[in-house]
Amino acid sequence: MTEATKETLALVAVDWGTSNLRLTLLDASGNSIGERSSDRGMGSLEPSEFEGALLDLIDDDLPSDKVTPIICCGMVGAAQGWKEAVYLTTPCEPPKGVRATPVEVNDPRISVWILPGVKQDSPADVMRGEETQIAGFIAQNPNFDGVLCLPGTHTKWARISAGEIVSFQTFMTGEIFALLSKNSVLRHTVNGSGFDKSVFEAALSDAMSRPQSLASKLFGIRAEALVNGMSADEGKSRLSGYLIGLELAGARPYWLGMDVALIGAPSLARLYQDGLAAQGVTASIHSVSEMTLSGLTAAYSVVKELN
Amino acid sequence: MTEATKETLALVAVDWGTSNLRLTLLDASGNSIGERSSDRGMGSLEPSEFEGALLDLIDDDLPSDKVTPIICCGMVGAAQGWKEAVYLTTPCEPPKGVRATPVEVNDPRISVWILPGVKQDSPADVMRGEETQIAGFIAQNPNFDGVLCLPGTHTKWARISAGEIVSFQTFMTGEIFALLSKNSVLRHTVNGSGFDKSVFEAALSDAMSRPQSLASKLFGIRAEALVNGMSADEGKSRLSGYLIGLELAGARPYWLGMDVALIGAPSLARLYQDGLAAQGVTASIHSVSEMTLSGLTAAYSVVKELN
Repeated sequence: MTEATKETLALVAVDWGTSNLRLTLLDASGNSIGERSSDRGMGSLEPSEFEGALLDLIDDDLPSDKVTPIICCGMVGAAQGWKEAVYLTTPCEPPKGVRATPVEVNDPRISVWILPGVKQDSPADVMRGEETQIAGFIAQNPNFDGVLCLPGTHTKWARISAGEIVSFQTFMTGEIFALLSKNSVLRHTVNGSGFDKSVFEAALSDAMSRPQSLASKLFGIRAEALVNGMSADEGKSRLSGYLIGLELAGARPYWLGMDVALIGAPSLARLYQDGLAAQGVTASIHSVSEMTLSGLTAAYSVVKELN
Repeated sequence: MTEATKETLALVAVDWGTSNLRLTLLDASGNSIGERSSDRGMGSLEPSEFEGALLDLIDDDLPSDKVTPIICCGMVGAAQGWKEAVYLTTPCEPPKGVRATPVEVNDPRISVWILPGVKQDSPADVMRGEETQIAGFIAQNPNFDGVLCLPGTHTKWARISAGEIVSFQTFMTGEIFALLSKNSVLRHTVNGSGFDKSVFEAALSDAMSRPQSLASKLFGIRAEALVNGMSADEGKSRLSGYLIGLELAGARPYWLGMDVALIGAPSLARLYQDGLAAQGVTASIHSVSEMTLSGLTAAYSVVKELN
């Protein structure tokens, strides 16, 4: 970074999850002037290691004559993270910075804040990170009344109305997919590099109509490969269809007759979009990084006022 | 083993699964004169290592002046095992030794046979090992007409009539339980040493009535611990109830209005027994090792005649 660019650095927006650390350098107008990332996620760090992991990415970017604010969201605020940040409780607006948790640091060039997560008391549920994507989406779509779906390791479905998260529900679909793909007896029968959309759609429909047979359908992937020579591409497409189908069946009260917006990695979000389309629901797709950045910068404008 | 006992050895009955090798030494009347086991299951062995793994357990037991027959069942006969054994195809009697696969060995003191597995073409399904337990059960209950459930890593449900396996269905319940308990985000919230039967039964009933919500109920275990301080004992009981409940919902066509016999580890079989009792089905529990031994010795009497 040149000295000229260094002078314009106004904020560092940090998305710090379990597996990855991603940040954006912003100028005073909220424009990106640089991006950095590493694999030093919360899951691999002791509390004393977070400041170093952050500085490793931005040490050369920080001006020495002022304090640069760092706004973080995600699992960095979990009990096992850098410092535990509070949870807001539904129904609530997604965090806007008011209840951000300040973190003590050694380096005088930075001041660090972690945004709250959101919890629901009954049925019990929690999120850390997705609430900031939701805040970003609402900042860009202030009149949205409908449902947000954030597919991922722990997919979130959230009802949004009047700028609030009314309720939400988490499905472990992504984590179950990863465990079955990598660590189960299915690992050799679902490791295809291709994907068969029609197989996916048939499996999805099958799981939606007979969700109770999931554990049997899963073994059936292995058995079809052994008995009838099913390909690993078809195996992967089936596994994906069964698990997303089960989730769509469980999330029906969320999406039925609603406006749905998906915030997720494009390849995964398109599978949800396809599955919903088969149920007659049209869903738009939005970028995770864009919504996260929008949420972090919106929060910063509040933090700034408070200090 | 004393020389006197050595002289009475007539047969070695071997249950050789993915994780373990278990065998029983039998005299000519079919009485056990010794048991041996090791953790050298099929999953950890190359084809060239099977004979050594077997001899490590019985080398001192083998008389040198005759050939001792070794009858094996289980994953030892899989394509990745010692030698691939055939599958019988349903509907069929469980293997009685007729189509046992002979294995070439170096040691002149033994002759080794692997019993067939059983497959089903549609819906595709496979078993290796359980068919021998089923054979043992039928040998002891020749007039049984009903359903056998063999709970385990891959739980099998089999319709038995007129001495035949009419059809069967596998559920990955045990493997999913193990993956979620040890490798998922739930691992810290389901590691209790106690078990709450009423929590288990409520979770089982919940999963049976709303199977489509499984992936959400699973995350709920983590969320209840974080938000409401649920104990790890309750977490484990819930996880078990959700997964067995899902299976019982899927296996309903098997057990509804039927005579059910369970062959499984007592602690696990009792959970299935409890779950079935809540549905008005009375199920008996039978020992895995006893049924396996009964199946292996019944098969031996046929192999003997063929040679």
